[in-house]
Amino acid sequence: MAGSSIGTIFKITTWGESHGEAVGVVIDGCPAGLPLSEELIQPFMDRRKPGQTDYATKRNEADRVKILSGVFEGKTTGTPISMMVENTSQRSHDYSQIASCYRPGHADFTFDSKYGFRDYRGGGRSSGRETIGRVAAGAVAILFLNRLGISFTTFTRALGPVSLKDEDFTPSLLGMTPTGIPHDGLNAEAEEYLKTCMANMDSAGGIVECRVEGLPVGLGDPVFEKLDANLAKALVSMGAVKAFEVGEGIQAAGRTGSQNNDGFSLQEGKITKRTNHSGGTLGGMSDGSPLILRAYIKPTPSIFSPQQTVTRDKEEVTINIKGRHDPVIVPRAIVVVEAMTAITLMDALLLNMTARMDSIIDFYQK
Amino acid sequence: MAGSSIGTIFKITTWGESHGEAVGVVIDGCPAGLPLSEELIQPFMDRRKPGQTDYATKRNEADRVKILSGVFEGKTTGTPISMMVENTSQRSHDYSQIASCYRPGHADFTFDSKYGFRDYRGGGRSSGRETIGRVAAGAVAILFLNRLGISFTTFTRALGPVSLKDEDFTPSLLGMTPTGIPHDGLNAEAEEYLKTCMANMDSAGGIVECRVEGLPVGLGDPVFEKLDANLAKALVSMGAVKAFEVGEGIQAAGRTGSQNNDGFSLQEGKITKRTNHSGGTLGGMSDGSPLILRAYIKPTPSIFSPQQTVTRDKEEVTINIKGRHDPVIVPRAIVVVEAMTAITLMDALLLNMTARMDSIIDFYQK
Amino acid sequence: MAGSSIGTIFKITTWGESHGEAVGVVIDGCPAGLPLSEELIQPFMDRRKPGQTDYATKRNEADRVKILSGVFEGKTTGTPISMMVENTSQRSHDYSQIASCYRPGHADFTFDSKYGFRDYRGGGRSSGRETIGRVAAGAVAILFLNRLGISFTTFTRALGPVSLKDEDFTPSLLGMTPTGIPHDGLNAEAEEYLKTCMANMDSAGGIVECRVEGLPVGLGDPVFEKLDANLAKALVSMGAVKAFEVGEGIQAAGRTGSQNNDGFSLQEGKITKRTNHSGGTLGGMSDGSPLILRAYIKPTPSIFSPQQTVTRDKEEVTINIKGRHDPVIVPRAIVVVEAMTAITLMDALLLNMTARMDSIIDFYQK
Amino acid sequence: MAGSSIGTIFKITTWGESHGEAVGVVIDGCPAGLPLSEELIQPFMDRRKPGQTDYATKRNEADRVKILSGVFEGKTTGTPISMMVENTSQRSHDYSQIASCYRPGHADFTFDSKYGFRDYRGGGRSSGRETIGRVAAGAVAILFLNRLGISFTTFTRALGPVSLKDEDFTPSLLGMTPTGIPHDGLNAEAEEYLKTCMANMDSAGGIVECRVEGLPVGLGDPVFEKLDANLAKALVSMGAVKAFEVGEGIQAAGRTGSQNNDGFSLQEGKITKRTNHSGGTLGGMSDGSPLILRAYIKPTPSIFSPQQTVTRDKEEVTINIKGRHDPVIVPRAIVVVEAMTAITLMDALLLNMTARMDSIIDFYQK
Repeated sequence: MAGSSIGTIFKITTWGESHGEAVGVVIDGCPAGLPLSEELIQPFMDRRKPGQTDYATKRNEADRVKILSGVFEGKTTGTPISMMVENTSQRSHDYSQIASCYRPGHADFTFDSKYGFRDYRGGGRSSGRETIGRVAAGAVAILFLNRLGISFTTFTRALGPVSLKDEDFTPSLLGMTPTGIPHDGLNAEAEEYLKTCMANMDSAGGIVECRVEGLPVGLGDPVFEKLDANLAKALVSMGAVKAFEVGEGIQAAGRTGSQNNDGFSLQEGKITKRTNHSGGTLGGMSDGSPLILRAYIKPTPSIFSPQQTVTRDKEEVTINIKGRHDPVIVPRAIVVVEAMTAITLMDALLLNMTARMDSIIDFYQK
Repeated sequence: MAGSSIGTIFKITTWGESHGEAVGVVIDGCPAGLPLSEELIQPFMDRRKPGQTDYATKRNEADRVKILSGVFEGKTTGTPISMMVENTSQRSHDYSQIASCYRPGHADFTFDSKYGFRDYRGGGRSSGRETIGRVAAGAVAILFLNRLGISFTTFTRALGPVSLKDEDFTPSLLGMTPTGIPHDGLNAEAEEYLKTCMANMDSAGGIVECRVEGLPVGLGDPVFEKLDANLAKALVSMGAVKAFEVGEGIQAAGRTGSQNNDGFSLQEGKITKRTNHSGGTLGGMSDGSPLILRAYIKPTPSIFSPQQTVTRDKEEVTINIKGRHDPVIVPRAIVVVEAMTAITLMDALLLNMTARMDSIIDFYQK
Repeated sequence: MAGSSIGTIFKITTWGESHGEAVGVVIDGCPAGLPLSEELIQPFMDRRKPGQTDYATKRNEADRVKILSGVFEGKTTGTPISMMVENTSQRSHDYSQIASCYRPGHADFTFDSKYGFRDYRGGGRSSGRETIGRVAAGAVAILFLNRLGISFTTFTRALGPVSLKDEDFTPSLLGMTPTGIPHDGLNAEAEEYLKTCMANMDSAGGIVECRVEGLPVGLGDPVFEKLDANLAKALVSMGAVKAFEVGEGIQAAGRTGSQNNDGFSLQEGKITKRTNHSGGTLGGMSDGSPLILRAYIKPTPSIFSPQQTVTRDKEEVTINIKGRHDPVIVPRAIVVVEAMTAITLMDALLLNMTARMDSIIDFYQK
Repeated sequence: MAGSSIGTIFKITTWGESHGEAVGVVIDGCPAGLPLSEELIQPFMDRRKPGQTDYATKRNEADRVKILSGVFEGKTTGTPISMMVENTSQRSHDYSQIASCYRPGHADFTFDSKYGFRDYRGGGRSSGRETIGRVAAGAVAILFLNRLGISFTTFTRALGPVSLKDEDFTPSLLGMTPTGIPHDGLNAEAEEYLKTCMANMDSAGGIVECRVEGLPVGLGDPVFEKLDANLAKALVSMGAVKAFEVGEGIQAAGRTGSQNNDGFSLQEGKITKRTNHSGGTLGGMSDGSPLILRAYIKPTPSIFSPQQTVTRDKEEVTINIKGRHDPVIVPRAIVVVEAMTAITLMDALLLNMTARMDSIIDFYQK
């Protein structure tokens, strides 16, 4: 079915396989008049680029984004923005093993079962390269939201057993450490852990956190289109994300109401929550507090130690995965989490404009 | 915006406020020929009924479901199924307090901010009564899925600090204990905890788990319409759910790949996962193992102890909530979790029929 | 599939069969704050009521609309508006003939082929009673659009061979004649024609025209969501409509560009088209001129003269349809055409609010 | 808003402006296993190519389609099919006139009003080049439908005042005449008419008819998703189409029921309509007879004679359009009508697979 699009007003459609000609995205529904260029998007692409640290693959992916439509004289025109990145560096090597064997933790088996066959070169459509389109579209959403005073802080909250406490959060180190943990000591600890994983031919997972400030109150709708519900879908739609949390959602399940409720107060004449256990939503709508999301990312399934599996032809075999694989995808996933969050928020923000009769009359009668 | 519908082929739209005339649901896209009657749906409604235990409200809600369309001679006709439950027992009491005050943990503030005013009687649209439509629609989906050999096991995995281990799971106690925990001793422990909460004018949260067996391989799509992404949205769209997990998603973030990967083997000639850490999905598609989902539910926000808040008119006040409120909603949420899971799976199952050329040719040329 | 909804932001879902309990509609996405009551909607329902003239069925359908949700203190709340009309006057008579025979011009055969069986009482889901939901929802849209200064003029342009010329249009007779033709002489002529049809046990068709004034420029989108494309779908989705025209669309096909182009001029400083052959759209967007639509309606298929057909069991038979059937549906279709037009325009108007960055910044930063 | 996509299961999204880098389309939801290649698509592209006759522009557009994703080893994989055509031959000439003037019959004025500015080079997003994506996607749909035994016959039914009668239809001339009229004498007559138009610096319109044979009974849904309603939208979404007709829809409005109803009979044991006035649908569902559609196309708005208009800056001026413009687009529109029809039918055919419980059980239990 048509599963490669997300969004209602701001709608994106990604396309492309890891070893095809290119990967890309079409954004439909971006408002006209947003300043946009390849130069403004490229920094976001660079944040997901591999080959930057010891813990990401050594492939030299240039990943230069090209805008093919929807921008004129430096601004979006309101028509679809088509963006593309060529698959220049994909080596054509021997895929006979993964063509016939089902790699544990990968989608090989489910692809073959669903579609009858699959593009077995690299991860095909389930490759991490699919996220290039998400990041390019997310960049547009972030640039848009920034213009409205909305800002993002996204980082590694945990990597394997190493976890960042709030008091250790170091703003100046955001995006500056190889593991994405904004703290020198904890980053070093996590690097040690990753080295051990690599030595063991193993891999690691972790938690990415995204905080959004400056959101207006009321984004999201009270029933199925709750803001947190759509964010849950957006983040769990990332390949390796297996759990989602808004605010202190997991701990909240063990608390009492008096511990978990956020009372209200007045701050400079503005209604404000005294605490933010809820993570920025109430009843599925943004509540003016910072939005706080967490994506739980499983360890990279491609590991170099031998694993037991079966072939397409139903033989039990031992597989030894070769090639270039990140021992952890968490640092590269940071910008993808931010992108998916921004895409979801931008759509909610546009949809929210139609909530009230009085605003609509204002809009059309001014 | 239009936020009260969910699903693409099997699409449901709920409507109704807690203190209006009625609440209901329209199901559009249910296949023709499914045996259906009010008698078949009512047992699901009864599972979410309050007033059954000490830990749920004493309201005597009859909640008799009425089918208004879409069924003829005992079977669905393929046209919309409209179902309704009247709001017979809603007492018209004094709402002046919640009309003007913003209850902590509730959607009062966000509703007013978004829409300019709100139906302040009970929870309005954000009331738990909205889930009546979800459960009625979910009953249809469960009846449909049962016919295809798909079955559900849903229960309380944790209530406050009391947590069920796999080895304590007692199938014969499913749906038989007041707390929903299928274990005598742990249920008793949880009941004690709830009594303490009530004595303290406080409330509790917990975790509901849903397991689904018998799913075909390949449901869900590899990118944004991943099966787990849609399930995340479906469960987080429930009022008090603040986190979602598929399989061992939260723990997986701290593991290594060799610990978390599920190898494959052959079982009676069928390709099967040796373990099920992933919880029944691979690459966003069902993998033939049991689907395992967990919804993390916050403590009931309506507590009887005094809380600090503000009024619509921006005065700081202390609020003392009165009335009838469940000290915990977890036991009543079980059937809602099951319903939302079934609705999502049924939609995925219908969408999956169009994945392959050969099946389509078979379908039209037989 | 889910085919009973239309609209993206302002989305309606109709439900119900002619001889079930009731028929109804759920509107999702109506902005909050629109004054609404059953009294405001009922006049629209009355415009489609049968039994008012000699040329409509004699059934005494009260068709009182009931609002079940979404309205509080006389205004819409932003939550779904559920409306229902009970099927009180449907006689339970003998349906054995239409249960087994396929009526020419009706959906009996296609329903059975698609779904395996059908609700054969009256027209079931394909009954004209389905339009009750459309009219109730259309009333809401018309009330909304009126508040923005948008007004509707809808009338019978032709009935059988009797056709209204522009110079005969008599505004004071709008909605005042049995045939819907706003002209005394032509109405009388059309009544004569209908009497002849009835004497011949035959039926008639015609053309309904809808004109909309006061639309802002720019509604609709330039590619698939062209305003006229969505209006075409909305009108052709009415049971008996077999052709659609915007402006002078049919004649335009035979003209030259110099005859058909509408030049621009300035009228009181405003850019205006000198003529309106295009019927109010340019490139799929409203152009500020009156929108002019025409729906071509086939003659009522239920005629009392004998017709050749087949049974479910594949026997050739002659069918003699009995019961109460309008010899022409055109006069009752007027309000349905207006309703479907309004529903489509309201959705376009809400969607249009998100077209420009500068308006969005204005909206959120004021 | 997001207006560049159409379809539910088989969903296409076009992108690109006439003078940008390229134009293209992403197809999402094409079933896996359909043989596909650039060679199979190119013939459809060639059917819409200009420069082939005296009555189309002389531009030498190579319009070679490139498949960027979704095809592996000669078959579709079930993932998005991205296709692109580069805008190689767009001359960069002087656009100062159309940058500032609103061309009559074009979307210049509505674009500027809606979005605040526009890409004024050529038609921008409203250019006929946008149909390249439609045709490429339509080719995929046609190839798919052909495999199910469904075939298309599309031709010019009328050009200006020259109209083809059924008895003159010459199958061997399909696609062989410059005007698209499959009849030697009438084609010659239409060519004469076009020469006169050109001599007068004027342009012509016409009617394209599409006939589809081999459709299963039951495609489409009975209410808003009627097959003919979706076809109406699909065809009216083409730039110059201003009216739509299914079967004898326009004439039907003037007929009686006994003239217009199609009786049923048995043909070789199969239930068949005796006539096909309805054009292949009953109650919005395909009825097994040939589907017959007509699109009414306005004369090309770009004419070389002087026209009165206004500028962006609100000055009245006379405009003299220069450049290369087809005096009639009807012959090139034939393949676009066929493409839009096929896209709509393929989507309906996939959606129809979920209509019945018994087929679903068959599908999953075989």
